[in-house]
Amino acid sequence: MKQIAGGVTAAAGFEAAAVAAEIKYKNRNDMALIYSTHPCMVAGTFTTNVVKAAPVMWDKQLVETAPFVQAVVVNSGIANACTGQQGLDICQKEAQKAGELLGLPENAVLVASTGVIGMQMPLDRVCTGIEKLVAAKAPGLEAGLAAAKAIMTTDTVHKEIAVEFQVAGKTATMGGMCKGSGMIHPNMCTMLGFITTDVNISKEMLQKALSRDVVDSFNMISVDGDTSTNDTLLVMANGLAGNEEIIAEGADYDAFCEALHFITTYLAKKMAGDGEGATCLFETQVVGAATKEDARILAKSVICSSLTKAAIFGHDANWGRILCALGYSGAKFDPENVDLYFKSVSGEIQIFGNGVACAYSEEEASKILADPEVTVLVDMHMGNEEATAWGCDLSYDYVKINADYRS
Amino acid sequence: MKQIAGGVTAAAGFEAAAVAAEIKYKNRNDMALIYSTHPCMVAGTFTTNVVKAAPVMWDKQLVETAPFVQAVVVNSGIANACTGQQGLDICQKEAQKAGELLGLPENAVLVASTGVIGMQMPLDRVCTGIEKLVAAKAPGLEAGLAAAKAIMTTDTVHKEIAVEFQVAGKTATMGGMCKGSGMIHPNMCTMLGFITTDVNISKEMLQKALSRDVVDSFNMISVDGDTSTNDTLLVMANGLAGNEEIIAEGADYDAFCEALHFITTYLAKKMAGDGEGATCLFETQVVGAATKEDARILAKSVICSSLTKAAIFGHDANWGRILCALGYSGAKFDPENVDLYFKSVSGEIQIFGNGVACAYSEEEASKILADPEVTVLVDMHMGNEEATAWGCDLSYDYVKINADYRS
Repeated sequence: MKQIAGGVTAAAGFEAAAVAAEIKYKNRNDMALIYSTHPCMVAGTFTTNVVKAAPVMWDKQLVETAPFVQAVVVNSGIANACTGQQGLDICQKEAQKAGELLGLPENAVLVASTGVIGMQMPLDRVCTGIEKLVAAKAPGLEAGLAAAKAIMTTDTVHKEIAVEFQVAGKTATMGGMCKGSGMIHPNMCTMLGFITTDVNISKEMLQKALSRDVVDSFNMISVDGDTSTNDTLLVMANGLAGNEEIIAEGADYDAFCEALHFITTYLAKKMAGDGEGATCLFETQVVGAATKEDARILAKSVICSSLTKAAIFGHDANWGRILCALGYSGAKFDPENVDLYFKSVSGEIQIFGNGVACAYSEEEASKILADPEVTVLVDMHMGNEEATAWGCDLSYDYVKINADYRS
Repeated sequence: MKQIAGGVTAAAGFEAAAVAAEIKYKNRNDMALIYSTHPCMVAGTFTTNVVKAAPVMWDKQLVETAPFVQAVVVNSGIANACTGQQGLDICQKEAQKAGELLGLPENAVLVASTGVIGMQMPLDRVCTGIEKLVAAKAPGLEAGLAAAKAIMTTDTVHKEIAVEFQVAGKTATMGGMCKGSGMIHPNMCTMLGFITTDVNISKEMLQKALSRDVVDSFNMISVDGDTSTNDTLLVMANGLAGNEEIIAEGADYDAFCEALHFITTYLAKKMAGDGEGATCLFETQVVGAATKEDARILAKSVICSSLTKAAIFGHDANWGRILCALGYSGAKFDPENVDLYFKSVSGEIQIFGNGVACAYSEEEASKILADPEVTVLVDMHMGNEEATAWGCDLSYDYVKINADYRS
């Protein structure tokens, strides 16, 4: 497997487009289209929030029942959440419109929205946007890049990645893009994410691979603990790599899962590091846990702690807050046996062990915490299970962004 | 029942003192003593954090096993948490020292600490402080006020209250003080709280009353979701009101519980409204819930949402975030049936109903959100259960305070 340039248009047969439709933003692209020249198997995971946005309901139904899909229409600016029957009708009209223009049934067109909750979508501008998208769709990396930028809200960087790998003697490609910066606490997964591949894989195995993967990728990140109404992650596979269809576990399935995990982990970390107001990616690795679930719970508790996140922002080695966050996570352990380390490109130091602080240098610790990627390593000394979670620091800008997001 | 002046020294037989011991802070009082001239029944609730500070372990043991208690030594500046055996030894030495000077066994002296985690307590200065405290202890409201101020850390106001009420034909008094501003997400309860009363009540009934009460008072507040290592709430009852001992449920027990709830709710709201960096008290009332537990979960989810808290700080009626927080709380409901209102002294407006936004005035909503106490009222229309939770907004100052708390 090797990383290559591009994103959702890297795999054979995938095209994209981005246009300015003035859904809510002015003077920028705010709608995107992903299109496959051939029918795709699709798998998806969606928000666990009881309050589900209309596009989430539309896509869930399609992922469960549609024989194939071939396009996704995405907009930023308005989330089409808490919009009642009118919001659901809009989704259907978006799919109808795109379907008509692309020669597809409406149940082959997925939709996704991100932005302000509660506002109704302007149907006329959405439809005009879809007309422009279909006219503009094109293969190639530029089109994919434009799409990755059009779906951004408070994101400061676009997020895309692609890899090439071998499946059953054929060269296959997988690419993805996502957006997400605030309301990020996936379960599953506060974000919009789209992954495309030319691998030939059955719907059942595609969904299985995705559902397993998100537990240790997108579900291990958090920016602010708020699980969105719109979280959507879709994987589309059109089979153009020409490999024999993957219909069971085995070497081909493993190769597929490896590529998928590379893509999802990259995108998840990108999202965490671009959390609203973030100045760094804040990673917590838990090793030596009694169970895998404990490892996940402990790692997530640390990256979710507001106090710890604020200390990281201040480059303050306030490790007591980390121990505190481990302590209220819900996992059982003996604090006397925990070892804590700070790590970054600048070095690694132990800060806690045998129940008390180590004799570390505050200056060295602050230097580590000033790096753009900061890792807390926690050894629980209770077993062999591990997990890693990703978040970001808590800065003034998080407050600034969210005190007036709507205006 | 009527509110009267004072705090922990309001009830008969209770004295207090505050002194500057330079535990960590300079030029301010940082140690306090609460003393009862007569032996007290004691009840307590403590942090559920696996990482428990040394004073929590000391006090838990005393609350469970000591035949009576008569004093509490409190310090601010250092939390005596994550301090290993040395930290536990310090607690015992504090109790020994105070016991010697007060003529009490060491297991009649409770201790409590709040401040930085991980730092060892300076035993010499602590002991000197205890000597000064015992010399300075006095009855009267001034001594209680000084104690309430000495236990503050990042608090901006001291927190005390007292009430007078009738029990079995006798006039009784109850008073309390607490501190808490950051690391506030009680379960039970991120804070130090001390309640004193002259009521004659059995240890069993005292603990029962306290344990029931905190579920709807201190456990319903949150500033930042971080459950501290040091949370301690103690109630001491010395019996000097002269009422027949309360040993069972009934009218006297109910009168006691009513006074207790008045005190705990007042102190809990004071803590929430004085959350680190807070500009307002942010209350969420959930009515019409299917179960009491659902009502509590829903109310707490809203006041814990970083995005909602930031919107309140910005006086932005971003109600979608409230609905989102209800949705990920874990309680089941139909979003179509939820009604949302904003309330304050400035008025009340409905903002969401029948699954969509109401036609409310943004200007009127912003005016309500600019008040020092802001309430979100949520009617679930699923039953008759209610709960209220209290938090605060998320401001730049929360980040500022916590990015460099240790320095």
